[in-house]
Amino acid sequence: MDEKGYIHLYTGNGKGKTTAAIGLAIRAVGAGKRVYIGQFVKGMHYAELGALKRFPEIEVRQFGLDCFIKNKPTQKDIDAARKGLDAVKLIIDENIFDVVILDEICIALYYKLFEVSEVLELVKSKPSAMEIVLTGRYAPQELIDIAHLVTEMKEIKHYYKIGVEARKGVEY
Amino acid sequence: MDEKGYIHLYTGNGKGKTTAAIGLAIRAVGAGKRVYIGQFVKGMHYAELGALKRFPEIEVRQFGLDCFIKNKPTQKDIDAARKGLDAVKLIIDENIFDVVILDEICIALYYKLFEVSEVLELVKSKPSAMEIVLTGRYAPQELIDIAHLVTEMKEIKHYYKIGVEARKGVEY
Repeated sequence: MDEKGYIHLYTGNGKGKTTAAIGLAIRAVGAGKRVYIGQFVKGMHYAELGALKRFPEIEVRQFGLDCFIKNKPTQKDIDAARKGLDAVKLIIDENIFDVVILDEICIALYYKLFEVSEVLELVKSKPSAMEIVLTGRYAPQELIDIAHLVTEMKEIKHYYKIGVEARKGVEY
Repeated sequence: MDEKGYIHLYTGNGKGKTTAAIGLAIRAVGAGKRVYIGQFVKGMHYAELGALKRFPEIEVRQFGLDCFIKNKPTQKDIDAARKGLDAVKLIIDENIFDVVILDEICIALYYKLFEVSEVLELVKSKPSAMEIVLTGRYAPQELIDIAHLVTEMKEIKHYYKIGVEARKGVEY
């Protein structure tokens, strides 16, 4: 069995990026692994957070405010993301998690809450056996280049186009 | 709040289809919903099954054999899938689950274990509020047409191309 860990990237405009990361977390836990989930930009209560609390092997931290960024990020958005990046640095250095998920980190980069060079440095500093999972639309080319596995979640059809609004337990 | 349930389809050749469905199951449970997961073609132990057992709100059934179909399905593969389809029919009729996930059902169709017309009939028979999630590569056009949300998990880069084999807790 290969003990090396790899870098995953789930991007694209379709539904399924965060849920794929959560599904991967559940699979990892089932294999006896410990998982850290750091959510950037998000600070609202997502239904999955309650369910994930049942797993002592999964630690979830949110590094966003309680509302989405509108147009331009505020200093508060930037400060929250920066705090998150610092927290993740510590988590990676401490090396107590087998899988580290950085949810919506591509969105944080899209809004320039921090620099892509900082994320590259962070990811490159990972312990060899650690698996890192990055999500979010608008992945910069530098992350695509460094990732070992990249899936584009491509929207073929979305029900918001027929007027379906985001629903608790399905979208959040 | 919209009480209507919709049909999701996660297809494509990239990693993330089954994990997205599992993540959706976790999110649904966090919102107090009950989830049924029927896995076609798969009969092996996936690490997530152990972790999902911790949720009394999630029922998982497998309708595949303990090895993948090689080239051509055997009568045993067909019988197992048929049994699964019948079981799912009952589950949908009983209407005790809010979310019904039919994992790898597109692969079952690809191998012609049953007919697409049967799956269409099944899906169309769903109670109005039920959410149905279909996964698997090679989704037939008829399922794309009937689904309200379709995401193609598109492989941009995969680590099996650099020699990484399927790993417990990551791929299974």
